[in-house]
Amino acid sequence: MSFQKSPGTQDILPGSVERWQYVEQTARDICRRFNFREIRTPMFESTDLFKRGVGETTDIVEKEMYTFTDRGNRSITLRPEGTAGVVRSYVENKIYGEPDVSKLYYIGPMFRYERQQAGRYRQFHQFGVEALGSADPALDAEVIALGYTFYTEVGLKGVRVEINSIGTPAVRADFRDKLLAFLEPKRELLCKDCQSRMDRNPLRVLDCKTDQHHFEGAPSILDSLDEECRTHFDKVQTYLTDMGIPFVINPKLVRGLDYYTHTAFEYKAEGIGAIDTIGGGGRYNGLVSEIGGPEQPGVGLGLGLERTIMLLEHQAQQLPDPHRLDVYLVALGEASERRVTQLTYELRKAGLRAERDYLGRKMKAQLKSADRFEARYTAILGDDELARGEIALKEMATGEQKVIPLDQLVQELAGNK
Amino acid sequence: MSFQKSPGTQDILPGSVERWQYVEQTARDICRRFNFREIRTPMFESTDLFKRGVGETTDIVEKEMYTFTDRGNRSITLRPEGTAGVVRSYVENKIYGEPDVSKLYYIGPMFRYERQQAGRYRQFHQFGVEALGSADPALDAEVIALGYTFYTEVGLKGVRVEINSIGTPAVRADFRDKLLAFLEPKRELLCKDCQSRMDRNPLRVLDCKTDQHHFEGAPSILDSLDEECRTHFDKVQTYLTDMGIPFVINPKLVRGLDYYTHTAFEYKAEGIGAIDTIGGGGRYNGLVSEIGGPEQPGVGLGLGLERTIMLLEHQAQQLPDPHRLDVYLVALGEASERRVTQLTYELRKAGLRAERDYLGRKMKAQLKSADRFEARYTAILGDDELARGEIALKEMATGEQKVIPLDQLVQELAGNK
Repeated sequence: MSFQKSPGTQDILPGSVERWQYVEQTARDICRRFNFREIRTPMFESTDLFKRGVGETTDIVEKEMYTFTDRGNRSITLRPEGTAGVVRSYVENKIYGEPDVSKLYYIGPMFRYERQQAGRYRQFHQFGVEALGSADPALDAEVIALGYTFYTEVGLKGVRVEINSIGTPAVRADFRDKLLAFLEPKRELLCKDCQSRMDRNPLRVLDCKTDQHHFEGAPSILDSLDEECRTHFDKVQTYLTDMGIPFVINPKLVRGLDYYTHTAFEYKAEGIGAIDTIGGGGRYNGLVSEIGGPEQPGVGLGLGLERTIMLLEHQAQQLPDPHRLDVYLVALGEASERRVTQLTYELRKAGLRAERDYLGRKMKAQLKSADRFEARYTAILGDDELARGEIALKEMATGEQKVIPLDQLVQELAGNK
Repeated sequence: MSFQKSPGTQDILPGSVERWQYVEQTARDICRRFNFREIRTPMFESTDLFKRGVGETTDIVEKEMYTFTDRGNRSITLRPEGTAGVVRSYVENKIYGEPDVSKLYYIGPMFRYERQQAGRYRQFHQFGVEALGSADPALDAEVIALGYTFYTEVGLKGVRVEINSIGTPAVRADFRDKLLAFLEPKRELLCKDCQSRMDRNPLRVLDCKTDQHHFEGAPSILDSLDEECRTHFDKVQTYLTDMGIPFVINPKLVRGLDYYTHTAFEYKAEGIGAIDTIGGGGRYNGLVSEIGGPEQPGVGLGLGLERTIMLLEHQAQQLPDPHRLDVYLVALGEASERRVTQLTYELRKAGLRAERDYLGRKMKAQLKSADRFEARYTAILGDDELARGEIALKEMATGEQKVIPLDQLVQELAGNK
């Protein structure tokens, strides 16, 4: 009997995992500098939380959730996204009672039962931030800048920021009417998706990839913004310009749900063939109260790590190689074998990355291992050297070899690190 | 409507999360030095994998798994432990074909539907390593040393290593007969658990906490070891002694399942009142073939991060505080506000941890924020200073204050880091 991973899941193996570690470490470091702190919420939550927080009529909730009944007869769901859990935690733990704005980040797996296709996983991974407790447009700009800085520092080229304002729910209701008045006469000309969106979420019609030629002359939400919305949006733009973040305004960029307000944004990059959306976010001043908390504004972003890593590989961005060995120890003889076991541990305790053989292989095979691990040094201990209290040390780059006292090995290597 | 986390799950919040980050970072750094590389397997696998890899008659599989049917009608289970997935991946990805021993580690969530009690979580977190492809006793010693080094370096005091050899399946069959011959006459005196274990897994009877007084004179598995097993166990002890790892032999220490061989070990520490097992592992030369792979030996360990962190807190071990701010920027006036937004971003880009106000608060409240964040410096920008191109910089520890040109702020702070 042999076993396979479940469809839509992936193993991240040595050789690939280093890129994940690098990307995640970069995200953590940027969050540290931006004074965001990590929050870890559970992999599953009550199903009702996502119905409320993600939206009952979204594709995610209708078709893609891993929902099941646990042994205590509760309906639970593997988290399909990160925001609902963070906001639930913010409310349940009364974090809103703290005097400073809550600036939180998360990194971890999410789960959606999507149709299988290249680059889509049912367990995928997101990095996201949520800033809760302030309506200051400087915070919108900061979150947008954080994501842009992340892409820049991991080494992704050609990332474009698109921003929009979707106003308040009142502004959007007004705009929805204008938009439907424009769309209704064209209903029969539009694709099935657009027709269905006209009834469920008309703003998203403008997002359609195939029907753009029907939308010339369509009203823009930017013309519907009231004074407050316009001021907020202007400030976001001013701050982004001051910070040197390049952006374009895309009035067709929308977010699906009623609790979104003001700023919406997306990051795009040249993908394999097409321009891909690689991340995005926005302000959601209505979400905290929607899931049972006090009226507290918020703004956040979420981005997919699979997509980021795929594009980095597509752009052939090199990583600093964190995998190099400091020293590979070769033992020749049984007494040496024992001493090498001890030495290897001493080197590791001293902070060095050290490796040895576990397969009783001949010296030649061991030296090949040292090459595969890109060892900086090889240390060779035969029973003769051991008897004299010495060890042979070879620097692999130069081929330079010397014999040193055994008890100076750790010091010698730690000094040459 | 308000929401709570699911029973048995936890939110790890800022203030606690730093300890998690520290413990995990220490584990990663030790694995780097020991030349173990990370592997990430999915959060769920086919249910059959765990039945086979963990054991059909174990408590985990019988009572504690989060098993459900997905939208494709497959039975999947949230991973209750880490080894089965790693070995599945090792086989499925043919990692055994590589010329070096596969030294892998994982850190992440596991899921068991256990009865709720203090310190037990249904989503809990484990750090584990698996070394596959070598039967060398030096590798058993290395894995034991790795775990011991982990506990030592995170700062846990009083950790004790217990080791045993449980031999090969043939040795154990022989011992099982001897043990049952000893136990049968006492069957009625033993507790219900022991009686049930006599039928299902007699070796684990000796583990019983209440019946120890009945076990005087019981046979020891160490007396049943054959030559090969004894040699292997002797070498493990020699290597541990050479490395300076303190250990005791506990002949009653067993592992549950047939694919375990030779070395078994546990780490114990003084808990809250009692001595707790905080981690353990062993050699499992039969596991890889059990789940459909070639005959490849292995040895591994797993340890619970909740338990480690709880004990660190119980022992009141201090962490280096990674949370300190480099600089808090105070803006006084609208023009300053804009410039502070820009400056904050420049400081962050330069690698500094910088923060500012987002709530339009008065200077006094902002300075309180700076204190809460333990800022090293506070930089104050009023519209007057801005007009002169200057900013006031205060070092919080000394109270020393000076006025510097605005365009030297980044350089000044980066230099004093």
